[in-house]
Amino acid sequence: MSKAIQNEGYLFKQVYDYVMHRIERKEWNEHDKLPSVRQLAADMNVHRLTVLKAYKLLKQDGKVYVKDKSGYYVQTSMKENNDFENIQYVSANVQKKHLSDINQVPVSYHFSQALIDPNLLPNHYFSDYVKKVFDLYPKVLATYSTVQGDEELRESLTHYFINQYKTHLHADDLLITSGSQQAIHLLSQAFIKPRDTVLFERPSYSAAIDIFRAQGANIITVDIHPDGYDLEQVESYMKRYKPRLFYLNPTFHNPTGYTVPADQRKKLVELAEQYRCLLIEDDAYHDIYFKETPPPPIYTYDTVGTVIYIRSFCKYISPGLRIATVICHSSVLKSLLSMKSLADNGSPLLNQKIFLHYFSSLRMQQHLEKLRIALQIRKEIMEEELAATNWQWTSPHGGLNLWIKLPDHFSSELLLTKSIQQSISFVPGQLCDPLNQLSSWIRLSYSYVNEKQLREGVRRFVDVAGCLSPPESC
Amino acid sequence: MSKAIQNEGYLFKQVYDYVMHRIERKEWNEHDKLPSVRQLAADMNVHRLTVLKAYKLLKQDGKVYVKDKSGYYVQTSMKENNDFENIQYVSANVQKKHLSDINQVPVSYHFSQALIDPNLLPNHYFSDYVKKVFDLYPKVLATYSTVQGDEELRESLTHYFINQYKTHLHADDLLITSGSQQAIHLLSQAFIKPRDTVLFERPSYSAAIDIFRAQGANIITVDIHPDGYDLEQVESYMKRYKPRLFYLNPTFHNPTGYTVPADQRKKLVELAEQYRCLLIEDDAYHDIYFKETPPPPIYTYDTVGTVIYIRSFCKYISPGLRIATVICHSSVLKSLLSMKSLADNGSPLLNQKIFLHYFSSLRMQQHLEKLRIALQIRKEIMEEELAATNWQWTSPHGGLNLWIKLPDHFSSELLLTKSIQQSISFVPGQLCDPLNQLSSWIRLSYSYVNEKQLREGVRRFVDVAGCLSPPESC
Repeated sequence: MSKAIQNEGYLFKQVYDYVMHRIERKEWNEHDKLPSVRQLAADMNVHRLTVLKAYKLLKQDGKVYVKDKSGYYVQTSMKENNDFENIQYVSANVQKKHLSDINQVPVSYHFSQALIDPNLLPNHYFSDYVKKVFDLYPKVLATYSTVQGDEELRESLTHYFINQYKTHLHADDLLITSGSQQAIHLLSQAFIKPRDTVLFERPSYSAAIDIFRAQGANIITVDIHPDGYDLEQVESYMKRYKPRLFYLNPTFHNPTGYTVPADQRKKLVELAEQYRCLLIEDDAYHDIYFKETPPPPIYTYDTVGTVIYIRSFCKYISPGLRIATVICHSSVLKSLLSMKSLADNGSPLLNQKIFLHYFSSLRMQQHLEKLRIALQIRKEIMEEELAATNWQWTSPHGGLNLWIKLPDHFSSELLLTKSIQQSISFVPGQLCDPLNQLSSWIRLSYSYVNEKQLREGVRRFVDVAGCLSPPESC
Repeated sequence: MSKAIQNEGYLFKQVYDYVMHRIERKEWNEHDKLPSVRQLAADMNVHRLTVLKAYKLLKQDGKVYVKDKSGYYVQTSMKENNDFENIQYVSANVQKKHLSDINQVPVSYHFSQALIDPNLLPNHYFSDYVKKVFDLYPKVLATYSTVQGDEELRESLTHYFINQYKTHLHADDLLITSGSQQAIHLLSQAFIKPRDTVLFERPSYSAAIDIFRAQGANIITVDIHPDGYDLEQVESYMKRYKPRLFYLNPTFHNPTGYTVPADQRKKLVELAEQYRCLLIEDDAYHDIYFKETPPPPIYTYDTVGTVIYIRSFCKYISPGLRIATVICHSSVLKSLLSMKSLADNGSPLLNQKIFLHYFSSLRMQQHLEKLRIALQIRKEIMEEELAATNWQWTSPHGGLNLWIKLPDHFSSELLLTKSIQQSISFVPGQLCDPLNQLSSWIRLSYSYVNEKQLREGVRRFVDVAGCLSPPESC
């Protein structure tokens, strides 16, 4: 399989799943003819190309075959061996590659996506907002943004942060980036040369590990625990290895869900200042708390510019817009501006204006409240279904994931292979580990799949895992 | 002036110009009070923050002063010396910096912007399109794009290129990037290590020069002439310096407007294959022809993957969306995907869907036809006004710029200083020259400024230049 499997996003997946469900439920039997591409596109209210893509992948996966010029027919389960080969091939590859490979495998139960279920986002309301933006800024599509980002947006975010955290801030201290990924990437380019040492939590955000590795960084890790870090260990590493920076995600940490307590935050800033180690605080999940608001961001304890704060709004406000902001000292900002002007010369203005108006609306606050409740319910469903196992995890107070310890005999590689066969994906612990171990840990996201599928899928997953245990447990 | 001058885009500029015109025409006199921010925002139908920004810059430029808590008053021309100092400071800096510094200086006659006048773009129609996209894809804001880019869009572009140029192409051969800037940047990162040699035209696109310089490239130049290149020179440099790649803009070249003839294109591909030099063909102006369509892109002569083709649609279709596509061999695409997954993990899906639907519409074709006519008229106005001088240029058959040779005694640095004082900006030749010379050449864009301002501005510019000539000409 030399072509990477393309995932069109939820539309494509819906078509794929639609066909698979009919086949699995025997509504469509072996050799039955599938609806024509045109017909199904009309029925499902999607583009013909979306249906065609789903059909092609079904064929590739051996679920359907083609006869005549344009007819698709249901394939029998006789082809399961080929599926197995195909999927094994993908699984074998994903051990070496990015999380994105796992996410692209079309399964029914996406526990690998730390994304919000599109159905939980106020899509209809977005639509109205976008129309409003065009009324306010009729020439927005004809205009470029500055490299630093739309000033109106930066002013609005500045007011927000000042109100939330009572910090001193000015719109000039902010940079708008196309998502937190771009922010991390620009920072890695601005600060890291090959063999520079950086400190990472273990485990950590897989894309950040990839980014810093690609810059040639030497990654040293400190463990993150449910109650934060061992600050003596942090200090000792800063002293010994003199890392250029420490990349951290201290609030509803990805993948663990842990939150670093307030008393540690202040101390961390002091250590960072003392040992001249920049702190890059990635705070993507800040608003996704279940009971109480989390402690203030680490940057609010910073007085001299040691902390670079990345706040992404992609996950739960509008993934499709890709808007994040970086708050930092002016010298850092200058480097970042330089990098960004080369990288793309500024994020699209349209996206910034849409985000600006949505972000400052009352509706968004209401949306966030509902989202928190919905996510908490999903977390609880997942935990209920997992209670049947002897697996261990710390129940998070916010965020999108459970970080689960399986018994030592498990290999998450094999578990992934078997799971994908059962249309389930998750993230093996190694992908979150800078040291590439943690192979009996897994990350399960409860945020993407609806409640019914969540229950079904976790049960199915527990069964799959059960069959991989020593004989007496299957 | 430690803060970079921020340009909010055309809205901010309109407010700034509005006030300046009133002052210049003596409608508002010294010590007159300006309208309140709120009032002017209502009158001009812009955001208060936009007016506030314009007012702050007027104050910074010494055009107005502040009294009481929130009143702005007209400043007298007594402050002109300070303006001069401020502007000289900016001008001195721009010699060393990017084109973006020049573009950010708020002037009335922007001959430095190789952008389309927003008033020439079908803004109202865009608005309808965006609403339509939300109806077709209700969850578009809740969904991420793949790294390679929306498949529907790639399929649509593939059909377009196949129809236009009869090439073999597949949607898998395309990558969607956030503008051509990002494409060039990703390519520089994928292919260039410090001290690698690259071939450039002289002059060339200033941002590309900056990008490759930032990667540490050693830039060797070949001259571009109205009739193309000296292919013997090209061959001799490829043989001698073994450049990794040749970055070129062979159709309505920026800044010269020259177009490389068809017979040279085929030969160029042969040379590139022979000497194993990748060709990066940046084709941003392809559709902006005045009389005849230009020769087919160089990539259409390529059979083995020597050419990497960048087609940006930003300039004249929708700058605010920032959409470009790269067509290349699968091994190159693989590298680019890897780079892009780190850089931003995929361009925003919303922008791609909006572009997809607009691009495939009849309206866009009609728009392009009108745009060509409008730009040709503007080119002719500029040329008419310049006929009064003894300056030399080759009239381009398309594109957005005139590339003009001034008599040798001119220093474009000093000319820029004086011009900015007269509210005129342009691009000094050095910024387009990898060798940093060409100081008696200038680039004037006719695309951004309306016809009336074009005439006024060019006349004024000719006067300014006239006063810098030897005494007998002033």
